[in-house]
Amino acid sequence: MKRTDRVGAIIKILSQNPSKNFSLGYFAEKFGAAKSSISEDLSAARKMMQSMELGIIETSAGASGGVKYISRISNKEVDILLQDLCTKLEDPGRILAGGFLYTSDIMFDSTLAKRTAEVFARKFGDKKADYIITVETKGIPVALMTADLLNLPLVVIRRESKISEGSTLSINYFSGSTDRIQKMSIAKRAIQPGTKALIIDDFMRAGGSAKGISDMMKEFDVEIVGTGVVIASKEPEKKKVEDYFPLVYLGKVDENSKKSEVFPNNIIFS
Amino acid sequence: MKRTDRVGAIIKILSQNPSKNFSLGYFAEKFGAAKSSISEDLSAARKMMQSMELGIIETSAGASGGVKYISRISNKEVDILLQDLCTKLEDPGRILAGGFLYTSDIMFDSTLAKRTAEVFARKFGDKKADYIITVETKGIPVALMTADLLNLPLVVIRRESKISEGSTLSINYFSGSTDRIQKMSIAKRAIQPGTKALIIDDFMRAGGSAKGISDMMKEFDVEIVGTGVVIASKEPEKKKVEDYFPLVYLGKVDENSKKSEVFPNNIIFS
Repeated sequence: MKRTDRVGAIIKILSQNPSKNFSLGYFAEKFGAAKSSISEDLSAARKMMQSMELGIIETSAGASGGVKYISRISNKEVDILLQDLCTKLEDPGRILAGGFLYTSDIMFDSTLAKRTAEVFARKFGDKKADYIITVETKGIPVALMTADLLNLPLVVIRRESKISEGSTLSINYFSGSTDRIQKMSIAKRAIQPGTKALIIDDFMRAGGSAKGISDMMKEFDVEIVGTGVVIASKEPEKKKVEDYFPLVYLGKVDENSKKSEVFPNNIIFS
Repeated sequence: MKRTDRVGAIIKILSQNPSKNFSLGYFAEKFGAAKSSISEDLSAARKMMQSMELGIIETSAGASGGVKYISRISNKEVDILLQDLCTKLEDPGRILAGGFLYTSDIMFDSTLAKRTAEVFARKFGDKKADYIITVETKGIPVALMTADLLNLPLVVIRRESKISEGSTLSINYFSGSTDRIQKMSIAKRAIQPGTKALIIDDFMRAGGSAKGISDMMKEFDVEIVGTGVVIASKEPEKKKVEDYFPLVYLGKVDENSKKSEVFPNNIIFS
């Protein structure tokens, strides 16, 4: 194999397995090449990725050392993504009776889920979370893609306790989005006490769900290290959780004039 | 930029956007290179990917022509995946009261979802589906990843009709898994009449869900071009749908002896 081939294959394998550690020996064996050659390949791959802003190839030394790909969305790409989200969300055709917005096609779009997940991965990548937590259903794609980028398990809280979940912990909480008491339920075996969790969800109105998850996690002695949502509504301004990170803000939705206002959050990574 | 850099960047961009068409001009502009150079880069990338069994780079000529990456899991990787699934599923710790198996950690594992999706993408990639359909909740990750590989929208059928879905079509059906009548509901705007859909789900017992989806799709004049499930139970042998493609079969689950039998499907792609 030529260097061009090895570098291409390394980039393919690493970038399709974000945050996963590969040993130099893995590539040396796969390509029938010396570790010193692989080391030079990695150096070439790292430089290219950095100069093209395609992400980071991180090497660590020592016995447990190796190499991994870390996604790193650029500020320019964040800007393009948020503008894109705002334009899509402001489409008058999304406005439903009662001033609700239809967002399922956006939330279940795998490409958008991957791009939004890149923002959360960059924002929360250093928080040392042990898992990503979401509540079914529309937050699952972006939470899954974030879990993938950070190489973490995803835990999905269900609305109803299911027999296929084993023993569960359930709570009731007030949901501002549906204006009623809702239930959430989590499989006990999904969570280890004393760990850290990152909440990722599609939408926050008053923060009832996030507060509910947070309360549930306290029962497990789990620390919430961050909360990312794709859309946060402007109203109510005071949420039930203090600290949350939205990609866009949803302002007024006027059912009669078919107009809605969506603003990008001001996100600049240093 | 050197050839090694361009080839690496092309592979990164193409493989992170499966089944999406990119023009040669896109890369020429991005890299400040002549189209003839890009064409040679693509040829190098294609040969390497093929020889390493990392997927296919497909070029098409003409005004609407371009290049795209198509995932193509090898038979060896399918074999490793299915063995891996069987081993994980046979873990005695998964057996719950009532002979149910705990599978949430498997179904919400993004790496497993990507790998299982590769099998469905290879199996159903040429069926010209217009979207992937699943029913919430545990089938969403593998359905999303399949949608991503085939560059198709994902439509998620809900258990309850939600106000945020707009007008919905609902049906009741008999679910063998839960041994009761269940409801499923789909947003009318999610489906266009006269199209084709591919069903992807986590589990099939008697095929009630798949039959329910199929019946629903008939109301929209939508043709089901395939049904893929991660796990199909051996019993009942006769399912409510004729044609389905499972990755593994679940045999007897013995709650007392804590033993379960899981068999790989015999999948060989030509």
